[in-house]
Amino acid sequence: MREVAVIGVGMIPFGKYPDRSLADLGWPAVKAALKDAGIERKQVEAAYCGTALGGMMAGQRILGKIGMTGIPITNVENACSSSSTAMRQAVMAVRSGEYEVVLVIGVEKLTKFGGGTLPLETEDWEVTQGMVMPTLYAMRAQRYMYEFGLTPQQLAGVSVKNRANGALNPDAQMKKPVTVEEVLASRPIADPFTLLQCCPTGDGAAAVIVCSGAFARQVKSNPIWVRASDMVSGIYTPGYRDMTIPEITLRGSKEAYEEAGLGPEDVDVAEVHDAFSIAELLYYEAFGFCAHGDAGHYLDSGATKIGGKVAVNPSGGLLAKGHPIGATGAAQIVEIVRQLRGECGARQQPNARVGISHATGGGITGFDHGVCSIHIFSR
Amino acid sequence: MREVAVIGVGMIPFGKYPDRSLADLGWPAVKAALKDAGIERKQVEAAYCGTALGGMMAGQRILGKIGMTGIPITNVENACSSSSTAMRQAVMAVRSGEYEVVLVIGVEKLTKFGGGTLPLETEDWEVTQGMVMPTLYAMRAQRYMYEFGLTPQQLAGVSVKNRANGALNPDAQMKKPVTVEEVLASRPIADPFTLLQCCPTGDGAAAVIVCSGAFARQVKSNPIWVRASDMVSGIYTPGYRDMTIPEITLRGSKEAYEEAGLGPEDVDVAEVHDAFSIAELLYYEAFGFCAHGDAGHYLDSGATKIGGKVAVNPSGGLLAKGHPIGATGAAQIVEIVRQLRGECGARQQPNARVGISHATGGGITGFDHGVCSIHIFSR
Repeated sequence: MREVAVIGVGMIPFGKYPDRSLADLGWPAVKAALKDAGIERKQVEAAYCGTALGGMMAGQRILGKIGMTGIPITNVENACSSSSTAMRQAVMAVRSGEYEVVLVIGVEKLTKFGGGTLPLETEDWEVTQGMVMPTLYAMRAQRYMYEFGLTPQQLAGVSVKNRANGALNPDAQMKKPVTVEEVLASRPIADPFTLLQCCPTGDGAAAVIVCSGAFARQVKSNPIWVRASDMVSGIYTPGYRDMTIPEITLRGSKEAYEEAGLGPEDVDVAEVHDAFSIAELLYYEAFGFCAHGDAGHYLDSGATKIGGKVAVNPSGGLLAKGHPIGATGAAQIVEIVRQLRGECGARQQPNARVGISHATGGGITGFDHGVCSIHIFSR
Repeated sequence: MREVAVIGVGMIPFGKYPDRSLADLGWPAVKAALKDAGIERKQVEAAYCGTALGGMMAGQRILGKIGMTGIPITNVENACSSSSTAMRQAVMAVRSGEYEVVLVIGVEKLTKFGGGTLPLETEDWEVTQGMVMPTLYAMRAQRYMYEFGLTPQQLAGVSVKNRANGALNPDAQMKKPVTVEEVLASRPIADPFTLLQCCPTGDGAAAVIVCSGAFARQVKSNPIWVRASDMVSGIYTPGYRDMTIPEITLRGSKEAYEEAGLGPEDVDVAEVHDAFSIAELLYYEAFGFCAHGDAGHYLDSGATKIGGKVAVNPSGGLLAKGHPIGATGAAQIVEIVRQLRGECGARQQPNARVGISHATGGGITGFDHGVCSIHIFSR
């Protein structure tokens, strides 16, 4: 298979930009990625733009602003996996030989909706009955606490770790560290979650330049290699479902490891989809970082802190960096690339050689409307 | 390059289905395409779903309804080119060797918006000043009439031809033929367009099964071959723009003919993006069916009628078959495949061997937000 590399990444600090258009959120990230790659905009042959709620022709609007017109631009939507799906399309396009250099954009403007939880699927009867994302993840958390004795303090510990990481990331929306006590004392959202265990709402954009191995070697001394690019959708499961097992991530991680020829023991850094505190713990297990049921202890051990065995969400993750839906997958890749290059300063995972980005999207009724997209990178 | 074929197509009759969900519009088209291909749903390895306004996770919602879960599903948006863009992604995925069999879905439910012209880009200042699609195309028509002496009767003739074709198509939304007099006497929309020169609003879905040449030969005696799969975006043009030249279609058609190794003289049947009467005439020229400025005479000659040199929009086109935005590109492919197989009964173009589908999307400010996706097929 043709080698694929990342040679440029860029993003804007996630936050609230009610006065900027979607296009004006996106183009600075694209320019930053081009500059980082050291290439001209005319060298980009195609673009994939991931956005979930950005409206029609988001990629064209963004690239039109900086004169990157004429190339094939495809807008991609897979809820919270939108720009990781865009990344996968870009990787496939380069692997196929169709293009040498492809741009990936992730962008979202959630402030236009006024904040709060958005109903993902208004046609879904479970959603219209109140099973929005916080309640779904809360059920997972309740079951996990019941099965494995996870404590509220351990759950809060995910937010404490990720807010501490976010405090070291100039691109994070939430830059103030918090304590376990502060997390537990914050406003209740869906038991056991308090406000600080839910990702914030906000705006953002990120961009990634993907290219062939041959091109990468010409222009960069430190390309980051795409070792796996995987996507799965959920499988409908009638009747009893074990809510402590994130099925799509478990299946996707197996496929991705196999594609990369790597295993959990090889991973130094991971950006996983911690939309709510429990999610990160479930993903430790799905990625094989620890055994099923052991995620609380694994967190407590410090293994997932920066400097631990595998730094998880050194960017601050969705909980601290923020979660502008369509921008998240690309922003995770931005962080992993920076980590593998050793550019992360105070939040650098020492000697990071292999990294994972992981974004899930949807996943309500019977779990079958979910998507999971995983990329594995190495330096 | 790896051969790619179409082995199955299906659609629901376009129309108004305010009481059906988007998923319930989509799945019958998918089942029809599977049946047409003679394959099982589990043989489909991936899906691309084109929708412009269908909301998040449209493909997952549709396929979840019929238990086609687990496979990678990517939702694609490029305004009116959404499902032709999805087709292109599917073709690229099969060409790359990643998959053998891929499903393309196009779906839209416009009745949920209550009818009328939708503002394509609410962030676009020209749109917010009233330059919506009917006015944009009206300017093109005005200029064309001024430059080349096209008459209102000739313009109306496009609707007359396409409504006559639609009357022969059980899947068309508009099944009543109309006369030139009726077209010209219908309600004014944007001068020179009357109501019957504008495509109707409605709902619909269409599906296409794309596969490798090797797979196609195993399962079908009459696969239809994908000879070209092209997409371009608009190029920003400051200052004077010649509105009688559809730049993206002209550029795209050149690329597509080159890819196919075919020319205008080879084309027997074409489904082109006749959102408004003038559009079809501009596309005769962009595809090289006639010289620039000569489209009115070419229409008058009967060359684009069924049985003529190149039957254009034998399905009825957007003007009669309807234009549920995201469904249109896939539905065009459904028609071309049926034409090339000789399955179209009363509206069959005799001995059709080569066909084109052509969908444009967007295209407002300075033309640079537009997309054009063209496919060329042969039997």
